[in-house]
Amino acid sequence: MDDKKAVSSAGRRPNAREAKRAVRAAHAGQSVPYITRKIPCYEVLGVEGLALIEKNADTILEEIGIEFREDPEALAIWKAAGADVQGERVRMPRGMCRELIQATAPREFTQHARNPSRNVLIGGPNTVFAPAYGSPFIYNLDEGRRYARIDDFRNFVKLAYQSKSLHHSGGTICEPVDLPVNKRHFDMVYSHMKYSDKAFMGSVTHPERAKDTVEMAKILFGDAYIDPVTGRPNTVIVSLINVNSPMTYDSTMLGALKVYARANQACIVTPFILAGAMSPVTVAGTATQTLAEALAGMAFIQLLNPGAPMVLGSFASSLSMQSGAPTFGTPEPALVLYVMAHLARRLGVPFRSGGSLCASKIPDAQAAFESAQTLLPTCLAGVNFVLHVAGWLEGGLAMGYEKFVMDVDQAGMMHTLLEGVDLSENGQALDAIREVGPGKHFLGCAHTLANFETAFYRSPLADNNSFEQWEAEGRRDMATRANELWKKQLAEYVEPPLDPAVDEALLDYMNRRKASFADSNV
Amino acid sequence: MDDKKAVSSAGRRPNAREAKRAVRAAHAGQSVPYITRKIPCYEVLGVEGLALIEKNADTILEEIGIEFREDPEALAIWKAAGADVQGERVRMPRGMCRELIQATAPREFTQHARNPSRNVLIGGPNTVFAPAYGSPFIYNLDEGRRYARIDDFRNFVKLAYQSKSLHHSGGTICEPVDLPVNKRHFDMVYSHMKYSDKAFMGSVTHPERAKDTVEMAKILFGDAYIDPVTGRPNTVIVSLINVNSPMTYDSTMLGALKVYARANQACIVTPFILAGAMSPVTVAGTATQTLAEALAGMAFIQLLNPGAPMVLGSFASSLSMQSGAPTFGTPEPALVLYVMAHLARRLGVPFRSGGSLCASKIPDAQAAFESAQTLLPTCLAGVNFVLHVAGWLEGGLAMGYEKFVMDVDQAGMMHTLLEGVDLSENGQALDAIREVGPGKHFLGCAHTLANFETAFYRSPLADNNSFEQWEAEGRRDMATRANELWKKQLAEYVEPPLDPAVDEALLDYMNRRKASFADSNV
Repeated sequence: MDDKKAVSSAGRRPNAREAKRAVRAAHAGQSVPYITRKIPCYEVLGVEGLALIEKNADTILEEIGIEFREDPEALAIWKAAGADVQGERVRMPRGMCRELIQATAPREFTQHARNPSRNVLIGGPNTVFAPAYGSPFIYNLDEGRRYARIDDFRNFVKLAYQSKSLHHSGGTICEPVDLPVNKRHFDMVYSHMKYSDKAFMGSVTHPERAKDTVEMAKILFGDAYIDPVTGRPNTVIVSLINVNSPMTYDSTMLGALKVYARANQACIVTPFILAGAMSPVTVAGTATQTLAEALAGMAFIQLLNPGAPMVLGSFASSLSMQSGAPTFGTPEPALVLYVMAHLARRLGVPFRSGGSLCASKIPDAQAAFESAQTLLPTCLAGVNFVLHVAGWLEGGLAMGYEKFVMDVDQAGMMHTLLEGVDLSENGQALDAIREVGPGKHFLGCAHTLANFETAFYRSPLADNNSFEQWEAEGRRDMATRANELWKKQLAEYVEPPLDPAVDEALLDYMNRRKASFADSNV
Repeated sequence: MDDKKAVSSAGRRPNAREAKRAVRAAHAGQSVPYITRKIPCYEVLGVEGLALIEKNADTILEEIGIEFREDPEALAIWKAAGADVQGERVRMPRGMCRELIQATAPREFTQHARNPSRNVLIGGPNTVFAPAYGSPFIYNLDEGRRYARIDDFRNFVKLAYQSKSLHHSGGTICEPVDLPVNKRHFDMVYSHMKYSDKAFMGSVTHPERAKDTVEMAKILFGDAYIDPVTGRPNTVIVSLINVNSPMTYDSTMLGALKVYARANQACIVTPFILAGAMSPVTVAGTATQTLAEALAGMAFIQLLNPGAPMVLGSFASSLSMQSGAPTFGTPEPALVLYVMAHLARRLGVPFRSGGSLCASKIPDAQAAFESAQTLLPTCLAGVNFVLHVAGWLEGGLAMGYEKFVMDVDQAGMMHTLLEGVDLSENGQALDAIREVGPGKHFLGCAHTLANFETAFYRSPLADNNSFEQWEAEGRRDMATRANELWKKQLAEYVEPPLDPAVDEALLDYMNRRKASFADSNV
């Protein structure tokens, strides 16, 4: 816009009020593609402690080793690389995995979205928020808990698309249990492509499903699938590869990992650990084992395709030692999170962990306590890719509609927190203090008037009104207000434009593939 | 206990199982008098940013100054110390307040409790948790919200006494509105002395009431009131002195401050700020003003009684700029908290801030989100004295019974968090990983069996059971479970022993004083 256009219709330059209005409008519509933190990462261990854990992880890899099950190709690759392979057990010499990773793995990478302004930069000082993943159930106040369906899946894709504080569409937001197991990946991937223009995750439950994801991504991105400079595929899919802790990779996950890694698509290699069952009951022991397992998987990716993008993942919950049930939002997993994030930085790879985890069945105080006690550590630790930011209930068994918008609100606050302290002159606000002086109030001073619209994070769900007003409005709790908000949001949803030819090609691919084999629920 | 007594009744040394049982018993009854953190403080600003805020605070003190209202003695003291006094406005030369404080203020001090094993060390790496303070209302699920009474006050003293995660009995836990304003301090102070043996806070609403608190403390502590080494009074009372921000000390608070400081009792000098009303809308501006105000009050204390114990306090909430209502658990106050804690460390004085603050009227998800988003920053920032850890609802207007026990649960988790990562051999747990190996589980391994009873924090309120079990048990939310817990706790309350002669002397003092002037509600 040239200078002349900045002159208003009355032929004069915009006045202060108009300028302020423009700033407000820009701010109101503000949506960053991802967070770039301006405050330090929180670290609980010193260099000595971290080095001890790294040394112990190497001891695990060297002495005990990792099993790569039912995958002779993987064993051959490890053998050729110099590992000691006995049966399915692979033992790696000290330092081998770290060297393989540090030689070629990118410290950060861009995951492309079909809308390039939504591309996310994963790694470094950046944090990407994605919805929860993998629930067979949904929960809302109207229906309670029931099995999830593909229409729920679409609803959550839409809600994530609308949420300014989520940067990513996620993956298996919930399991569409109404569709056959061996075909539901088509509809899930298509929903992400159709109802959102944010980056998304791929199917990992079978190598063929991973291939379908890659094929559909090629259709969606067209020419943009290949980077014109490098000639290699752009990274357009990020996928979750869980390790079968302790110390085991199974053929399903290895199959999907190989498809994605070879296609230059990113894998999040995540030891999935309920400490006490899949790892020792201690923080240091759990971190050590997580590191060892992740090192093995990440080194394997670099052996498959040097330079392939990947993320070190850690999912660590503790177990109730009375009941055996997983617990969330407790202090031990937070400590594991801080340690793992720091270990990933030392290794030089992007890190995934945390989210808004909870064990509560409903969006009550327990859910909120536990979620906040996970999300804040996630943000302070410096996690780069955060799955499960919104919707998680019941240890991941249910995706909550109310919980989703409540979590998005909290995620919004994290944007402000990670922005840190403004030390500009306006931030210092000495003039405001001079203007007001002792015993007066700041409500009407010039500095407040210039800043109040954008001064503080505004929650759409918190009720800060007086008790009397809250009572007059029906004594609603946060979950009830959240129930209204997600319905309002879905009612206002507008689809992002998608080239009809691309849409048709996607549907054609899906339909042809679906018709090519029988439905199955295995 | 000598070695022989460690031999069991069967005439043999205790075996491994017995030893383990003893450890468990000790752990189950474990109650630390305060937390000594083993993890670093989280800091959001670098040295340059902090120095800028310190410089600006000095600019406020030098240019604008602080008003000391209706207190000619205070003005005379400032004048004699070299400050520029114009009317009630006191302007301090750059660095003056800091120098006064750093010359004589203790970096940490012990507040004595009548049970010496409950003494709290305030300052340094230590954190002391106290209940919420100052609510005129109570809230519980049975009665909803109503005015607080002295029996509520006693209930909360009892609950705090029983709570292993609260180290302090607090002060005006709730306002006993059924008692006359000018006499209720007697019953409040007596309740702390009688129903708890933890350290407590004094009355600040009138200098005479501060004097009554000191007199009753002298009766309670008897000979132990005076330190035999120094001949000075032990610090047995900590009191909350709020600044009338911006930049004003009123005669009520100054009156109480003078009584306590001269008696060597500790004051928490706390600018009470709703940012946007009592300070600028920015984090840096609010921190700058808080520091300036606190510096003035703390320097004044050192002028009154060099070496008197004191605490730098900060209460900073933000304002909803739409409604003017205070908001809690938002990111801006958390940033202020991190900055102020760091500034206090640089100054070399103990710091008070944070708690489990929220705006919610009820113990719902909003209350939990906001409380967690305050308490966790409080703990990570390194706050030394934490008021409002338990019970706070509705911006401090109501003390919640359910909220109280929910907050105590969270406070318990903070103990584990601040304990950090155990890097002992048992913590490293390499032998456990060796024993179990790939693909197995840790539930039955020797390391798990040796550690599981104390391995993870156990919440008395979180429901981690299956959905089906939770449903069978009545689909109770956390607040409902909390309702049962506080009633159970009160039913189980046992009074700590108090010398009947001391009790009688306290009652006698109270009754004589009460009879000496008419009831008043002013």
